[in-house]
Amino acid sequence: MNNPLPPVIVLVRPQLGENIGKAARAMLNFGLTEMRLVTPRDGWPNPDAGPAAAGADFILDKAEVYETLADAVADCAHVYATTVRKRGVTKPVVTPEEAAREIHTAPGRSAYVFGPERSGLETEDVALARKILTVPINPEFGSLNLAQAVILCAYEWSKQAGLEQPTVTDLLEPAPQLELEGMIDQLNTLLEKVGYFFPPDRAPATKLTLRNLLTKPGWNHLEVRTLRGVLSHLNRPRER
Amino acid sequence: MNNPLPPVIVLVRPQLGENIGKAARAMLNFGLTEMRLVTPRDGWPNPDAGPAAAGADFILDKAEVYETLADAVADCAHVYATTVRKRGVTKPVVTPEEAAREIHTAPGRSAYVFGPERSGLETEDVALARKILTVPINPEFGSLNLAQAVILCAYEWSKQAGLEQPTVTDLLEPAPQLELEGMIDQLNTLLEKVGYFFPPDRAPATKLTLRNLLTKPGWNHLEVRTLRGVLSHLNRPRER
Repeated sequence: MNNPLPPVIVLVRPQLGENIGKAARAMLNFGLTEMRLVTPRDGWPNPDAGPAAAGADFILDKAEVYETLADAVADCAHVYATTVRKRGVTKPVVTPEEAAREIHTAPGRSAYVFGPERSGLETEDVALARKILTVPINPEFGSLNLAQAVILCAYEWSKQAGLEQPTVTDLLEPAPQLELEGMIDQLNTLLEKVGYFFPPDRAPATKLTLRNLLTKPGWNHLEVRTLRGVLSHLNRPRER
Repeated sequence: MNNPLPPVIVLVRPQLGENIGKAARAMLNFGLTEMRLVTPRDGWPNPDAGPAAAGADFILDKAEVYETLADAVADCAHVYATTVRKRGVTKPVVTPEEAAREIHTAPGRSAYVFGPERSGLETEDVALARKILTVPINPEFGSLNLAQAVILCAYEWSKQAGLEQPTVTDLLEPAPQLELEGMIDQLNTLLEKVGYFFPPDRAPATKLTLRNLLTKPGWNHLEVRTLRGVLSHLNRPRER
Protein backbone atom coordinates (compact mmCIF):
# COMPACT_ATOMS: atom_id res chain seq x y z
CA MET A 1 0.00 0.00 0.00
CA ASN A 2 1.14 3.49 -0.70
CA ASN A 3 2.40 5.51 2.20
CA PRO A 4 -0.16 8.28 2.58
CA LEU A 5 2.29 10.60 4.33
CA PRO A 6 4.02 12.93 1.89
CA PRO A 7 7.66 13.58 2.76
CA VAL A 8 8.80 16.85 4.32
CA ILE A 9 11.42 19.10 2.77
CA VAL A 10 14.03 20.33 5.26
CA LEU A 11 16.29 23.22 4.30
CA VAL A 12 19.32 23.43 6.58
CA ARG A 13 20.75 26.92 7.06
CA PRO A 14 19.41 28.26 3.74
CA GLN A 15 21.06 31.52 2.75
CA LEU A 16 18.81 33.47 0.39
CA GLY A 17 15.10 34.04 0.96
CA GLU A 18 14.66 33.95 -2.79
CA ASN A 19 15.92 30.37 -2.88
CA ILE A 20 13.57 29.35 -0.09
CA GLY A 21 10.71 30.76 -2.13
CA LYS A 22 11.85 28.96 -5.26
CA ALA A 23 12.12 25.72 -3.31
CA ALA A 24 8.51 26.17 -2.14
CA ARG A 25 7.39 26.68 -5.72
CA ALA A 26 9.27 23.57 -6.83
CA MET A 27 7.65 21.58 -4.01
CA LEU A 28 4.14 22.66 -4.92
CA ASN A 29 4.72 21.88 -8.59
CA PHE A 30 4.81 18.26 -7.55
CA GLY A 31 2.38 18.28 -4.68
CA LEU A 32 4.65 18.62 -1.63
CA THR A 33 3.60 21.24 0.91
CA GLU A 34 5.48 20.72 4.18
CA MET A 35 8.67 22.76 4.50
CA ARG A 36 10.91 22.93 7.56
CA LEU A 37 13.74 25.39 8.02
CA VAL A 38 16.77 24.96 10.24
CA THR A 39 18.20 28.35 11.31
CA PRO A 40 17.76 30.24 8.02
CA ARG A 41 20.67 32.67 7.72
CA ASP A 42 18.58 35.82 7.43
CA GLY A 43 15.89 34.86 9.90
CA TRP A 44 12.29 34.02 9.20
CA PRO A 45 9.97 35.17 7.71
CA ASN A 46 12.07 36.58 4.90
CA PRO A 47 10.54 39.22 2.59
CA ASP A 48 12.43 37.86 -0.43
CA ALA A 49 10.84 34.44 -0.19
CA GLY A 50 7.23 35.28 -1.08
CA PRO A 51 7.77 36.82 -4.53
CA ALA A 52 10.00 33.91 -5.57
CA ALA A 53 7.37 31.39 -4.48
CA ALA A 54 5.15 32.63 -7.33
CA GLY A 55 1.92 31.52 -5.73
CA ALA A 56 3.22 28.83 -3.40
CA ASP A 57 3.23 31.33 -0.52
CA PHE A 58 1.07 29.21 1.76
CA ILE A 59 3.95 26.73 2.02
CA LEU A 60 6.14 29.54 3.34
CA ASP A 61 3.40 30.73 5.71
CA LYS A 62 3.19 27.37 7.39
CA ALA A 63 6.91 26.53 7.21
CA GLU A 64 8.28 25.64 10.65
CA VAL A 65 11.63 26.85 11.94
CA TYR A 66 13.91 24.69 14.07
CA GLU A 67 17.12 25.25 15.96
CA THR A 68 18.78 22.03 14.88
CA LEU A 69 18.38 19.43 12.17
CA ALA A 70 17.81 16.83 14.87
CA ASP A 71 14.76 18.81 16.05
CA ALA A 72 13.51 19.25 12.51
CA VAL A 73 13.49 15.54 11.76
CA ALA A 74 12.62 14.30 15.25
CA ASP A 75 9.38 12.70 14.01
CA CYS A 76 10.85 11.26 10.81
CA ALA A 77 11.64 7.60 10.39
CA HIS A 78 13.54 8.00 7.11
CA VAL A 79 15.95 10.85 6.66
CA TYR A 80 17.66 11.38 3.30
CA ALA A 81 20.65 13.73 3.23
CA THR A 82 21.09 15.16 -0.25
CA THR A 83 24.68 15.68 -1.32
CA VAL A 84 26.32 16.30 -4.66
CA ARG A 85 29.67 14.82 -3.91
CA LYS A 86 30.29 11.54 -2.27
CA ARG A 87 32.57 11.89 0.70
CA GLY A 88 34.09 9.21 2.82
CA VAL A 89 30.73 8.04 4.07
CA THR A 90 29.51 4.68 5.18
CA LYS A 91 25.85 5.14 4.40
CA PRO A 92 23.96 3.74 1.47
CA VAL A 93 23.70 6.12 -1.47
CA VAL A 94 20.45 6.26 -3.42
CA THR A 95 19.16 8.16 -6.45
CA PRO A 96 16.06 10.39 -6.28
CA GLU A 97 14.15 7.58 -7.99
CA GLU A 98 15.22 4.97 -5.45
CA ALA A 99 14.50 7.31 -2.54
CA ALA A 100 11.03 8.00 -3.93
CA ARG A 101 10.33 4.30 -4.24
CA GLU A 102 11.43 3.73 -0.64
CA ILE A 103 9.40 6.65 0.67
CA HIS A 104 6.27 5.36 -0.99
CA THR A 105 6.67 1.86 0.38
CA ALA A 106 8.24 2.29 3.81
CA PRO A 107 5.99 3.10 6.74
CA GLY A 108 6.54 6.31 8.68
CA ARG A 109 7.39 9.88 7.81
CA SER A 110 10.26 10.72 5.50
CA ALA A 111 12.38 13.83 5.12
CA TYR A 112 14.52 15.12 2.26
CA VAL A 113 17.28 17.26 3.76
CA PHE A 114 19.06 19.95 1.74
CA GLY A 115 22.10 21.95 2.84
CA PRO A 116 22.99 25.63 2.40
CA GLU A 117 23.30 26.83 -1.19
CA ARG A 118 27.02 27.38 -1.19
CA SER A 119 28.45 24.62 0.92
CA GLY A 120 25.88 21.85 1.16
CA LEU A 121 25.32 19.73 4.24
CA GLU A 122 28.01 19.41 6.88
CA THR A 123 29.32 16.03 7.90
CA GLU A 124 27.42 16.34 11.18
CA ASP A 125 24.17 16.85 9.28
CA VAL A 126 24.79 13.86 7.08
CA ALA A 127 25.54 11.76 10.16
CA LEU A 128 21.92 12.17 11.25
CA ALA A 129 20.57 10.62 8.08
CA ARG A 130 19.82 7.01 7.29
CA LYS A 131 20.81 7.36 3.69
CA ILE A 132 22.47 9.72 1.27
CA LEU A 133 20.60 10.90 -1.78
CA THR A 134 22.77 11.88 -4.73
CA VAL A 135 21.43 13.10 -8.03
CA PRO A 136 23.34 11.33 -10.81
CA ILE A 137 24.65 14.49 -12.37
CA ASN A 138 27.24 15.33 -15.02
CA PRO A 139 30.46 14.59 -13.11
CA GLU A 140 32.17 17.53 -14.79
CA PHE A 141 29.46 20.06 -13.95
CA GLY A 142 27.84 19.28 -10.68
CA SER A 143 26.46 22.63 -9.68
CA LEU A 144 22.79 22.05 -9.02
CA ASN A 145 21.00 24.92 -7.34
CA LEU A 146 18.74 24.42 -4.35
CA ALA A 147 15.38 24.69 -6.15
CA GLN A 148 16.58 22.37 -8.89
CA ALA A 149 17.67 19.75 -6.37
CA VAL A 150 14.30 20.09 -4.64
CA ILE A 151 12.33 19.84 -7.87
CA LEU A 152 14.09 16.67 -9.00
CA CYS A 153 13.33 14.97 -5.68
CA ALA A 154 9.72 16.20 -5.67
CA TYR A 155 9.27 15.20 -9.31
CA GLU A 156 10.45 11.65 -8.66
CA TRP A 157 8.25 11.39 -5.59
CA SER A 158 5.25 12.64 -7.55
CA LYS A 159 5.92 10.29 -10.46
CA GLN A 160 5.51 7.33 -8.17
CA ALA A 161 2.71 8.76 -6.07
CA GLY A 162 0.02 7.22 -8.20
CA LEU A 163 1.72 3.91 -8.71
CA GLU A 164 0.79 0.71 -6.98
CA GLN A 165 3.44 -0.21 -4.45
CA PRO A 166 4.23 -3.47 -2.73
CA THR A 167 3.20 -3.56 0.88
CA VAL A 168 5.35 -3.76 3.95
CA THR A 169 2.57 -3.44 6.49
CA ASP A 170 3.87 -6.17 8.77
CA LEU A 171 7.13 -4.36 9.41
CA LEU A 172 7.32 -1.86 12.21
CA GLU A 173 8.47 1.49 11.01
CA PRO A 174 11.90 2.73 12.06
CA ALA A 175 11.87 4.65 15.32
CA PRO A 176 11.56 8.40 14.87
CA GLN A 177 14.80 10.31 15.03
CA LEU A 178 14.04 11.59 18.52
CA GLU A 179 14.10 8.08 20.01
CA LEU A 180 17.34 7.34 18.25
CA GLU A 181 18.86 10.53 19.61
CA GLY A 182 17.87 9.50 23.11
CA MET A 183 19.64 6.20 22.72
CA ILE A 184 22.75 7.78 21.26
CA ASP A 185 22.87 10.30 24.12
CA GLN A 186 22.57 7.49 26.63
CA LEU A 187 25.44 5.58 25.04
CA ASN A 188 27.63 8.68 24.86
CA THR A 189 27.03 9.45 28.52
CA LEU A 190 27.95 5.92 29.47
CA LEU A 191 31.06 5.99 27.34
CA GLU A 192 32.18 9.26 28.83
CA LYS A 193 31.96 7.67 32.25
CA VAL A 194 34.29 4.83 31.27
CA GLY A 195 36.76 7.13 29.55
CA TYR A 196 36.05 5.91 26.04
CA PHE A 197 36.50 9.32 24.43
CA PHE A 198 40.24 9.67 24.63
CA PRO A 199 42.03 11.82 23.70
CA PRO A 200 39.31 14.42 24.28
CA ASP A 201 39.97 16.29 21.04
CA ARG A 202 39.08 13.14 19.10
CA ALA A 203 35.71 12.90 20.87
CA PRO A 204 33.64 14.71 18.22
CA ALA A 205 34.99 12.49 15.44
CA THR A 206 34.45 9.35 17.50
CA LYS A 207 30.91 10.38 18.35
CA LEU A 208 30.27 10.97 14.67
CA THR A 209 31.49 7.47 13.89
CA LEU A 210 29.17 6.00 16.51
CA ARG A 211 26.24 8.05 15.26
CA ASN A 212 26.80 6.83 11.72
CA LEU A 213 26.93 3.26 12.99
CA LEU A 214 23.75 3.54 14.99
CA THR A 215 21.64 5.34 12.40
CA LYS A 216 22.42 2.64 9.87
CA PRO A 217 20.10 -0.16 11.04
CA GLY A 218 16.80 1.72 11.10
CA TRP A 219 15.79 0.10 14.39
CA ASN A 220 12.12 0.37 15.31
CA HIS A 221 10.97 1.68 18.67
CA LEU A 222 10.88 -1.77 20.28
CA GLU A 223 14.44 -2.35 19.19
CA VAL A 224 15.54 1.03 20.48
CA ARG A 225 13.83 0.28 23.78
CA THR A 226 15.63 -3.05 24.03
CA LEU A 227 18.97 -1.39 23.38
CA ARG A 228 18.28 1.26 25.95
CA GLY A 229 17.58 -1.55 28.41
CA VAL A 230 20.94 -3.03 27.54
CA LEU A 231 22.65 0.29 28.10
CA SER A 232 20.89 0.81 31.43
CA HIS A 233 22.13 -2.56 32.59
CA LEU A 234 25.64 -1.83 31.48
CA ASN A 235 25.49 1.26 33.63
CA ARG A 236 24.77 -0.80 36.76
CA PRO A 237 27.35 -1.86 39.30
CA ARG A 238 28.90 -5.22 38.41
CA GLU A 239 28.26 -8.47 40.17
CA ARG A 240 31.73 -9.74 40.78
CA MET B 1 20.98 0.25 -28.91
CA ASN B 2 21.52 3.67 -27.47
CA ASN B 3 21.30 6.59 -29.84
CA PRO B 4 24.71 8.29 -29.69
CA LEU B 5 23.27 11.68 -30.72
CA PRO B 6 22.26 13.77 -27.74
CA PRO B 7 19.06 15.77 -28.27
CA VAL B 8 19.12 19.51 -28.87
CA ILE B 9 17.30 22.04 -26.72
CA VAL B 10 15.36 24.64 -28.70
CA LEU B 11 14.13 27.78 -26.96
CA VAL B 12 11.45 29.53 -28.98
CA ARG B 13 11.27 33.33 -28.52
CA PRO B 14 12.80 33.25 -25.02
CA GLN B 15 12.28 36.52 -23.15
CA LEU B 16 14.95 36.95 -20.47
CA GLY B 17 18.64 36.41 -21.04
CA GLU B 18 18.86 35.21 -17.45
CA ASN B 19 16.50 32.36 -18.22
CA ILE B 20 18.50 31.35 -21.28
CA GLY B 21 21.58 31.17 -19.06
CA LYS B 22 19.78 29.11 -16.45
CA ALA B 23 18.55 26.75 -19.13
CA ALA B 24 22.15 26.27 -20.30
CA ARG B 25 23.21 25.45 -16.76
CA ALA B 26 20.37 22.95 -16.41
CA MET B 27 21.36 21.33 -19.71
CA LEU B 28 24.98 20.92 -18.73
CA ASN B 29 24.01 19.47 -15.35
CA PHE B 30 22.79 16.47 -17.26
CA GLY B 31 25.20 16.42 -20.13
CA LEU B 32 23.33 18.26 -22.89
CA THR B 33 25.30 20.93 -24.72
CA GLU B 34 23.52 21.92 -27.93
CA MET B 35 21.17 24.90 -27.60
CA ARG B 36 19.26 26.55 -30.42
CA LEU B 37 17.42 29.84 -30.12
CA VAL B 38 14.51 31.00 -32.25
CA THR B 39 14.31 34.83 -32.38
CA PRO B 40 15.17 35.59 -28.75
CA ARG B 41 13.23 38.70 -27.72
CA ASP B 42 16.24 40.80 -26.71
CA GLY B 43 18.59 39.67 -29.46
CA TRP B 44 21.69 37.53 -29.15
CA PRO B 45 24.15 37.44 -27.51
CA ASN B 46 22.51 38.70 -24.34
CA PRO B 47 24.73 40.01 -21.50
CA ASP B 48 22.37 38.63 -18.83
CA ALA B 49 22.76 35.06 -20.00
CA GLY B 50 26.38 34.41 -19.08
CA PRO B 51 26.23 35.12 -15.34
CA ALA B 52 23.14 32.92 -14.98
CA ALA B 53 24.83 30.04 -16.77
CA ALA B 54 27.21 29.71 -13.81
CA GLY B 55 29.96 28.05 -15.79
CA ALA B 56 27.96 26.64 -18.67
CA ASP B 57 28.88 29.64 -20.81
CA PHE B 58 30.34 27.58 -23.63
CA ILE B 59 26.83 26.34 -24.39
CA LEU B 60 25.76 29.95 -24.88
CA ASP B 61 28.81 30.72 -26.98
CA LYS B 62 28.00 28.02 -29.47
CA ALA B 63 24.20 28.44 -29.37
CA GLU B 64 22.77 28.93 -32.85
CA VAL B 65 20.06 31.47 -33.65
CA TYR B 66 17.30 30.74 -36.16
CA GLU B 67 14.51 32.80 -37.72
CA THR B 68 11.86 30.11 -37.37
CA LEU B 69 11.27 26.94 -35.41
CA ALA B 70 11.07 25.06 -38.71
CA ASP B 71 14.64 26.14 -39.48
CA ALA B 72 15.81 25.27 -36.00
CA VAL B 73 14.61 21.69 -36.16
CA ALA B 74 15.18 21.11 -39.86
CA ASP B 75 17.69 18.33 -39.20
CA CYS B 76 15.70 16.68 -36.41
CA ALA B 77 13.77 13.48 -36.89
CA HIS B 78 11.92 13.69 -33.59
CA VAL B 79 10.56 16.96 -32.32
CA TYR B 80 8.95 17.17 -28.88
CA ALA B 81 6.91 20.28 -28.12
CA THR B 82 6.82 20.83 -24.37
CA THR B 83 3.57 22.23 -23.02
CA VAL B 84 2.12 22.47 -19.57
CA ARG B 85 -1.50 22.35 -20.55
CA LYS B 86 -2.89 20.01 -23.08
CA ARG B 87 -4.94 21.88 -25.61
CA GLY B 88 -7.19 20.54 -28.27
CA VAL B 89 -4.39 18.72 -30.01
CA THR B 90 -4.34 15.53 -31.95
CA LYS B 91 -0.78 14.51 -31.28
CA PRO B 92 0.47 11.84 -28.94
CA VAL B 93 1.32 13.18 -25.48
CA VAL B 94 4.34 11.73 -23.67
CA THR B 95 6.01 12.27 -20.30
CA PRO B 96 9.68 13.32 -20.00
CA GLU B 97 10.48 9.71 -19.16
CA GLU B 98 8.75 8.33 -22.23
CA ALA B 99 10.33 10.95 -24.46
CA ALA B 100 13.77 10.09 -23.10
CA ARG B 101 13.22 6.42 -23.79
CA GLU B 102 12.17 7.17 -27.37
CA ILE B 103 15.10 9.51 -27.94
CA HIS B 104 17.56 6.89 -26.78
CA THR B 105 16.14 4.18 -28.98
CA ALA B 106 14.94 5.95 -32.13
CA PRO B 107 17.49 6.66 -34.84
CA GLY B 108 18.10 10.28 -35.83
CA ARG B 109 18.38 13.60 -34.09
CA SER B 110 15.81 14.70 -31.51
CA ALA B 111 14.79 18.13 -30.24
CA TYR B 112 13.06 19.29 -27.09
CA VAL B 113 11.23 22.53 -27.89
CA PHE B 114 10.33 25.06 -25.19
CA GLY B 115 8.18 28.15 -25.60
CA PRO B 116 8.50 31.69 -24.23
CA GLU B 117 8.45 31.98 -20.44
CA ARG B 118 5.10 33.69 -20.12
CA SER B 119 2.95 32.18 -22.81
CA GLY B 120 4.49 28.88 -23.84
CA LEU B 121 4.46 27.53 -27.37
CA GLU B 122 1.92 28.80 -29.89
CA THR B 123 -0.37 26.39 -31.68
CA GLU B 124 1.70 26.90 -34.84
CA ASP B 125 4.86 25.83 -33.01
CA VAL B 126 3.18 22.75 -31.60
CA ALA B 127 1.93 21.88 -35.07
CA LEU B 128 5.54 21.35 -36.17
CA ALA B 129 6.19 18.72 -33.54
CA ARG B 130 5.80 14.99 -33.82
CA LYS B 131 4.69 14.68 -30.23
CA ILE B 132 3.76 16.74 -27.22
CA LEU B 133 5.77 16.42 -24.05
CA THR B 134 3.91 17.29 -20.87
CA VAL B 135 5.44 17.11 -17.41
CA PRO B 136 2.92 15.42 -15.10
CA ILE B 137 2.62 18.34 -12.73
CA ASN B 138 0.33 19.29 -9.83
CA PRO B 139 -2.86 20.18 -11.73
CA GLU B 140 -3.57 22.97 -9.25
CA PHE B 141 -0.14 24.58 -9.54
CA GLY B 142 1.29 24.18 -12.98
CA SER B 143 3.75 27.03 -13.11
CA LEU B 144 7.04 25.48 -14.11
CA ASN B 145 9.73 27.93 -15.10
CA LEU B 146 11.82 27.48 -18.21
CA ALA B 147 14.98 26.18 -16.54
CA GLN B 148 12.97 23.76 -14.44
CA ALA B 149 11.20 22.37 -17.48
CA VAL B 150 14.57 22.01 -19.21
CA ILE B 151 16.19 20.32 -16.22
CA LEU B 152 13.44 17.73 -15.87
CA CYS B 153 13.75 16.77 -19.54
CA ALA B 154 17.55 16.71 -19.40
CA TYR B 155 17.49 14.72 -16.16
CA GLU B 156 15.25 12.04 -17.65
CA TRP B 157 17.39 11.86 -20.76
CA SER B 158 20.53 11.55 -18.66
CA LYS B 159 19.02 8.88 -16.41
CA GLN B 160 18.74 6.62 -19.38
CA ALA B 161 22.00 7.64 -21.00
CA GLY B 162 24.21 5.53 -18.83
CA LEU B 163 25.77 8.54 -17.17
CA GLU B 164 27.56 7.68 -14.02
CA GLN B 165 25.06 6.52 -11.44
CA PRO B 166 25.73 6.62 -7.74
CA THR B 167 26.87 3.21 -6.75
CA VAL B 168 27.30 1.54 -3.46
CA THR B 169 30.50 -0.15 -4.52
CA ASP B 170 32.60 2.16 -2.40
CA LEU B 171 30.79 0.87 0.67
CA LEU B 172 32.45 -1.91 2.55
CA GLU B 173 30.63 -5.19 2.46
CA PRO B 174 29.00 -6.48 5.63
CA ALA B 175 31.37 -8.20 8.04
CA PRO B 176 31.48 -11.98 7.80
CA GLN B 177 29.23 -13.80 10.20
CA LEU B 178 32.19 -14.95 12.30
CA GLU B 179 33.06 -11.37 13.21
CA LEU B 180 29.47 -10.64 14.05
CA GLU B 181 29.32 -13.72 16.25
CA GLY B 182 32.41 -12.58 18.08
CA MET B 183 30.79 -9.26 18.83
CA ILE B 184 27.52 -10.83 19.94
CA ASP B 185 29.40 -13.24 22.24
CA GLN B 186 31.27 -10.34 23.74
CA LEU B 187 28.05 -8.45 24.43
CA ASN B 188 26.36 -11.50 25.90
CA THR B 189 29.27 -12.13 28.24
CA LEU B 190 29.17 -8.54 29.37
CA LEU B 191 25.43 -8.65 29.90
CA GLU B 192 25.65 -11.83 31.92
CA LYS B 193 28.10 -10.10 34.20
CA VAL B 194 25.65 -7.27 34.91
CA GLY B 195 22.70 -9.60 35.41
CA TYR B 196 20.84 -8.59 32.26
CA PHE B 197 19.50 -12.06 31.52
CA PHE B 198 16.86 -12.41 34.16
CA PRO B 199 14.97 -14.59 34.73
CA PRO B 200 17.46 -17.19 33.46
CA ASP B 201 14.84 -19.19 31.55
CA ARG B 202 14.12 -16.13 29.40
CA ALA B 203 17.80 -15.83 28.45
CA PRO B 204 17.60 -17.76 25.14
CA ALA B 205 14.67 -15.63 23.90
CA THR B 206 16.38 -12.42 24.98
CA LYS B 207 19.60 -13.45 23.28
CA LEU B 208 17.64 -14.14 20.13
CA THR B 209 16.11 -10.68 20.26
CA LEU B 210 19.55 -9.13 20.61
CA ARG B 211 20.94 -11.22 17.80
CA ASN B 212 18.12 -10.12 15.50
CA LEU B 213 18.79 -6.54 16.43
CA LEU B 214 22.50 -6.73 15.81
CA THR B 215 22.39 -8.63 12.55
CA LYS B 216 19.94 -6.13 11.07
CA PRO B 217 22.37 -3.32 10.22
CA GLY B 218 24.82 -5.32 8.17
CA TRP B 219 27.79 -3.60 9.80
CA ASN B 220 31.10 -3.97 8.02
CA HIS B 221 34.24 -5.16 9.75
CA LEU B 222 35.39 -1.66 10.68
CA GLU B 223 32.05 -1.00 12.29
CA VAL B 224 32.15 -4.28 14.16
CA ARG B 225 35.64 -3.44 15.37
CA THR B 226 34.44 -0.06 16.62
CA LEU B 227 31.57 -1.65 18.49
CA ARG B 228 33.87 -4.21 20.06
CA GLY B 229 36.00 -1.32 21.25
CA VAL B 230 32.91 0.19 22.82
CA LEU B 231 32.07 -3.06 24.54
CA SER B 232 35.62 -3.48 25.83
CA HIS B 233 35.44 -0.05 27.36
CA LEU B 234 32.10 -0.75 28.96
CA ASN B 235 33.72 -3.75 30.60
CA ARG B 236 36.33 -1.60 32.30
CA PRO B 237 36.14 -0.37 35.87
CA ARG B 238 34.33 2.97 36.09
CA GLU B 239 35.97 6.25 36.83
CA ARG B 240 33.91 7.52 39.71
